[in-house]
Amino acid sequence: MIEAASLDSIELLAPLTADQRASLAKQCSWRHFHPQEQVIDRASDSRDVCFIVEGRVRVVNYSLSGREVTFDDVEAGGYLGELSAIDGEARSASIVALSEVMVAFMSPRLFQQVVTQNPIIAWGVMTRLASIVRSATGRIMDLSTLGANNRVHAELLRLAKPTLKSDNTAAISPIPIHSDIAARVSTTRETVARVLGDLSRDKLVVRQDNSLLVRDFARLEEMVEEVRGD
Amino acid sequence: MIEAASLDSIELLAPLTADQRASLAKQCSWRHFHPQEQVIDRASDSRDVCFIVEGRVRVVNYSLSGREVTFDDVEAGGYLGELSAIDGEARSASIVALSEVMVAFMSPRLFQQVVTQNPIIAWGVMTRLASIVRSATGRIMDLSTLGANNRVHAELLRLAKPTLKSDNTAAISPIPIHSDIAARVSTTRETVARVLGDLSRDKLVVRQDNSLLVRDFARLEEMVEEVRGD
Repeated sequence: MIEAASLDSIELLAPLTADQRASLAKQCSWRHFHPQEQVIDRASDSRDVCFIVEGRVRVVNYSLSGREVTFDDVEAGGYLGELSAIDGEARSASIVALSEVMVAFMSPRLFQQVVTQNPIIAWGVMTRLASIVRSATGRIMDLSTLGANNRVHAELLRLAKPTLKSDNTAAISPIPIHSDIAARVSTTRETVARVLGDLSRDKLVVRQDNSLLVRDFARLEEMVEEVRGD
Repeated sequence: MIEAASLDSIELLAPLTADQRASLAKQCSWRHFHPQEQVIDRASDSRDVCFIVEGRVRVVNYSLSGREVTFDDVEAGGYLGELSAIDGEARSASIVALSEVMVAFMSPRLFQQVVTQNPIIAWGVMTRLASIVRSATGRIMDLSTLGANNRVHAELLRLAKPTLKSDNTAAISPIPIHSDIAARVSTTRETVARVLGDLSRDKLVVRQDNSLLVRDFARLEEMVEEVRGD
């Protein structure tokens, strides 16, 4: 346990006054984690909501064979672990620190109190859950209808999209790690390496300094849409 | 448009008074659908929440190649379509009537008003969204880590579980349609037929009158768990 810091950077709690946030901060348990440390073990009994005050964490699950399946990354200002706080059920996944991380753990009881007393915050929780459902639905569709190659293409598009420029190029920076992409799209590292090799040979994607440059975003998009049908 | 019926059977709205529900019912648009009719077209602009007052509907998506991927079935007393009402974004899937269906369509504005004025209802919406996220996460894990055969086994377990008896048998009734199972677990009808043939040959599953009898539930469970690692 460490001294309480501030929850002022947590987007969900923005509708509260600074005083209200300070009072909540004192009622949370605060912990610091190093990179690769587990913030929440899937097997644990904890039902707390985790507010990420500093750093970045990843939601992850493992199969018996050791295959890693990753879900969202959540950055400072965000929160996660709300499913168990809402329904009282066991954790659906583990949470791992990707950097030095500062977390405020809020009890399910306090979370319910905050949410039910503040309709705007309740609506914020619903909006966030809706976006998780949408991204899960998209992933189920991709897993159901796309081959592994196209899923890698789709993941590159997702990573590149925020940096898309008017000249139809985009730069993914830093260069993504093959095993990270593999865990996001449920395939092997070898498949990711092969697909990136093919794209590189076709000059669709090139390494440039510390980033992966997508040289023809529209073409890559077509390759996925032809199969996906969006 | 038809005359307003009652929303008294809608579980989410149980915390309201009968008068409040009657007033909401008058503000909804009411429609009747025949089996196989689309209640919501994915491509439509509608953002309404659908309360299922009578009958049963299915959430479904199609890939360009025509593969059907089904999500939840929702029965009388339930609701769906809340994602678009919450975030204002396009529909994530279509909704199809499985029987004669009576639906009350509530505008996103009215839905937001009901939810933000009633913390218990807001909590109910969150609980339902949490359960959708859990089932989607489970499906993503199954698609990522199980082969098609084991996914069919897992679906049979899911269907059989509510009827599991102390003698380790369970009966799925009516006998599920191969194409329905295929769309639920993202495989082909042929694969479902083959897996059911294998199970039948091993006497694990037998047809009996109008139901599919699982003769050794524990063994079927083992077959999935060996691979899934739960």
